[in-house]
Amino acid sequence: MEEGPVGADALRAVITRVFEKLGMGSPGAAVVADALVWADLRGLDTHGVSRLPRYVERIEAGEVDPSAAPTVTRHRAAVATVAGNRSQGQLALRTAADEAVAMAREAGVGWVSIRDASHAGAIGYFTHRIARERMAALAVGASRPVMLYHGSRAAGAATNPLAIAVPAGNGRVVSVDMAASTVSRGLLQRHRRTEAPLEPGWAVDASGHPTCDPTEAVLPTPLGGPKGSGMATLFECLANVTAGMPLIEPTLSGRLRHHAQGGAVLALDVEAFRPFDAFAADVDALADALRNLPPAEGHREVLAPGDRGDRIMAARNRTGIPLDAKVRVSLQEIVGRLGVEMPG
Amino acid sequence: MEEGPVGADALRAVITRVFEKLGMGSPGAAVVADALVWADLRGLDTHGVSRLPRYVERIEAGEVDPSAAPTVTRHRAAVATVAGNRSQGQLALRTAADEAVAMAREAGVGWVSIRDASHAGAIGYFTHRIARERMAALAVGASRPVMLYHGSRAAGAATNPLAIAVPAGNGRVVSVDMAASTVSRGLLQRHRRTEAPLEPGWAVDASGHPTCDPTEAVLPTPLGGPKGSGMATLFECLANVTAGMPLIEPTLSGRLRHHAQGGAVLALDVEAFRPFDAFAADVDALADALRNLPPAEGHREVLAPGDRGDRIMAARNRTGIPLDAKVRVSLQEIVGRLGVEMPG
Repeated sequence: MEEGPVGADALRAVITRVFEKLGMGSPGAAVVADALVWADLRGLDTHGVSRLPRYVERIEAGEVDPSAAPTVTRHRAAVATVAGNRSQGQLALRTAADEAVAMAREAGVGWVSIRDASHAGAIGYFTHRIARERMAALAVGASRPVMLYHGSRAAGAATNPLAIAVPAGNGRVVSVDMAASTVSRGLLQRHRRTEAPLEPGWAVDASGHPTCDPTEAVLPTPLGGPKGSGMATLFECLANVTAGMPLIEPTLSGRLRHHAQGGAVLALDVEAFRPFDAFAADVDALADALRNLPPAEGHREVLAPGDRGDRIMAARNRTGIPLDAKVRVSLQEIVGRLGVEMPG
Repeated sequence: MEEGPVGADALRAVITRVFEKLGMGSPGAAVVADALVWADLRGLDTHGVSRLPRYVERIEAGEVDPSAAPTVTRHRAAVATVAGNRSQGQLALRTAADEAVAMAREAGVGWVSIRDASHAGAIGYFTHRIARERMAALAVGASRPVMLYHGSRAAGAATNPLAIAVPAGNGRVVSVDMAASTVSRGLLQRHRRTEAPLEPGWAVDASGHPTCDPTEAVLPTPLGGPKGSGMATLFECLANVTAGMPLIEPTLSGRLRHHAQGGAVLALDVEAFRPFDAFAADVDALADALRNLPPAEGHREVLAPGDRGDRIMAARNRTGIPLDAKVRVSLQEIVGRLGVEMPG
């Protein structure tokens, strides 16, 4: 694989082949590849192709079953549970998103709790998918304790990403995708690689003491102290506990040892409330009003939520995705080892 | 009114009479009083009886109609809009919470958007109400731009409180109730009264510059920068824009000048997913596991989300609610002026 940016289509094709070689059916492999490349396109590099080595490892270790498919149990008109059945996380989330949309079409809203999935990448991919169906969307990821719990010196909550997206006019989407932690674990890892010091308050070391040394940092801190760890705890309850697969307490007590991830997805059909075009026009007007606010010192402009990702996506769709050296090397290693033909 | 703590029942009775004198029906007056006293009982003093003078002012100015009642429009099996019709905000939120529960009983989940309401106090009151119905609850308040928008030097988002509550065993509730701002506006006001300096990063002055001077502070900052203002913007869309009553853009553009508040409430019937007792036991186990985490330096113990409020409530139910001098004086003024008989 040559140096320089890689085209999104080429990258999608390679990653699809990697998952096919590992035993995943073609439609599923294409979904996982599309979700990973989407994250890279939007500048969420920590949730894109950089995750591939870990995904391959989990499949090869038997933790994730490439031939498994999620199953849906609809409980009532507007609620369902998706069981991942140890399939790749993106498949469970996509099944959940589609089921939420189907229920919202009838009942106005649909809620799906997810159990027994694996890492699902950037959950914003799934809220954007729902927004393209002209619905509002909310999703949370809920995994094992990897974040400091407020008031403690130990991990007691997940970084639980929260993603919300709403449709605007002309296929545009206004969106947020944020962790319940001050910074993501991916960012701590990147600082570890580049040896750049952390900002005060971002992380603690193995004894739970605040540290700015990226090699000592073990856990990110919760966003706003009790707010971040409280929000994360309640997401665990809304998602994993409703799904009947808690992850925090069983890990803390030592009963659960393997990688697992859950979550929840909500779709809300805005047309149940008012004509879609009126809703979209109001969202556009809001986004424009925010962009027209006076910039703060040191800021050239004000962005509406999601603008930054949209711009990076537009640029990378034109010029390709810059992969960092480490990601490129590990991708080449995987491709070589599995005998995947590189696209022309 | 004597000095020293006031019993919750006595306080509820006085406040109920105040609203009755202002023209509110007895059931409604009792709801508003109960919600305000609940906030004081849980230590949320900035959202309790301290708000009464402003509420009375709004009713006397004709901004809030004490004789109005909210109306419900159910659009589909699981979604509805509640119109406040300029009634006191607590009545709209309570109507929305009850409608969400009724829909969730059938469909598994219920979503209600709220329009044309006024200040609703602590929205945790309504998520706790839903949790007592053995359901999980999520609520957002959504009002006018009173928080700094990230990247700007002006207001562009509400402080949008987010409250989540889930039922545990024996009527217990695990809950969070947090603003999308670093600190609440109520806390800034309290520092203004006591002249205690603000912590760095909490607020900006009228020109949008960071300040620690409580007399200069005008706007709270968003929690985590783009996270807080992004979350708040998306809550405006999920709540007020679905309800057909946006508040941010119309205020920024100058079209909307009067006080108004919206919001949204979600109820999720956990029994649709699994037996209630199994859910409650898992929530209890999680809360206990968090309480058993090793405390950080400077912390005597670790609390589960909602523990602090539960403890203050237990204590204040026993010993009464301490009202600060300013609140006591303004309550006496209102009671005297309206000719409300004080309880014996």
